[in-house]
Amino acid sequence: MPKQVDHQERRETIARALWRVVEQRGVGHLTMREVAQEAGISLGQLQHYFTSRQAMIAFAMDHATEQTARRVGLGLERLGEQPHPRDVLRLMLTETLPFHADARATSRMSAAYVLEALHDPEVHAKARADLRQGRDLVEQLVRRAIADGFVAADRDPVVETDLLLALTGFTTLMELDVLGPDQVRAAVDQYLDRLFA
Amino acid sequence: MPKQVDHQERRETIARALWRVVEQRGVGHLTMREVAQEAGISLGQLQHYFTSRQAMIAFAMDHATEQTARRVGLGLERLGEQPHPRDVLRLMLTETLPFHADARATSRMSAAYVLEALHDPEVHAKARADLRQGRDLVEQLVRRAIADGFVAADRDPVVETDLLLALTGFTTLMELDVLGPDQVRAAVDQYLDRLFA
Repeated sequence: MPKQVDHQERRETIARALWRVVEQRGVGHLTMREVAQEAGISLGQLQHYFTSRQAMIAFAMDHATEQTARRVGLGLERLGEQPHPRDVLRLMLTETLPFHADARATSRMSAAYVLEALHDPEVHAKARADLRQGRDLVEQLVRRAIADGFVAADRDPVVETDLLLALTGFTTLMELDVLGPDQVRAAVDQYLDRLFA
Repeated sequence: MPKQVDHQERRETIARALWRVVEQRGVGHLTMREVAQEAGISLGQLQHYFTSRQAMIAFAMDHATEQTARRVGLGLERLGEQPHPRDVLRLMLTETLPFHADARATSRMSAAYVLEALHDPEVHAKARADLRQGRDLVEQLVRRAIADGFVAADRDPVVETDLLLALTGFTTLMELDVLGPDQVRAAVDQYLDRLFA
């Protein structure tokens, strides 16, 4: 199905153009006109793929989430058959934080998406569902780590999950060069060491 | 000096109008034209106070920081003469997170500001300096808490400070209704209990 492949490729090209607009010019420039220009297509062609700005942003966000999941998947392969839950959580955290260009692109996209969500109920509902899904995944990991004796039995899985998710707050500190990548890695490692003590 | 008071009042009115634009319409609408309209003044009048969009945003951000500092100051008064460092850190965290309308307004303003910083070196430099100053304040508190025996002597003050700052990551989880305020309070309390164990 070569036509469908082209279609998907074109959508990915658009998603990447959208990220570049956010990254280089800021979310204030996130209009269909500027994204079309950045992607090197006409506004009409862009509207063929996305009927609204919201739909375009939702796709770009999904694409970013998929890219992160793909990177985590590749990392998991490197961890082998039965990875330690500490390594799995560390991988998920470090692929979510802006430690490298791809992760930075997706994390900036996320930040723009959250700001959109604050004044757009449709984007809010989708962002919330996505984040809840991510949270559920982490909670499953934490519960299994407790059940398997990797984490102390008196730890509350809900609280531990919420605290792990809150550590994505390092994103802003890294983006503004308040903390360097090594300092953040040290803090994340220290945190996980204590959780798995 | 009645004239100077008016001047300051007008600037605060503009800052509040700017926050409303960010809150209700999104950062994509953060132009001098839209802020002037929201503040009920002409674009020319706005330009009398701020020569550029950046200068206007920087002032609004400073105003937000001052408002947060003021709320923390009021909370400190309620804590009495020699507050426990745990209570001071809890106060700083809970006044930074969007637990109530004022804190939500300042935290949204911050999020918009960080996104601006990503593609504007001037805003980046200022946001970085502001956040570093906030970080230094927290590190002083943590160091004193260790020196005074409230926190175990083997805790690394730099790592502990960084982890406390990372907990501002709860902002996104609260804004997207992934976590309710009570759940976040429980996680913050649990975290501080462990730090001051």
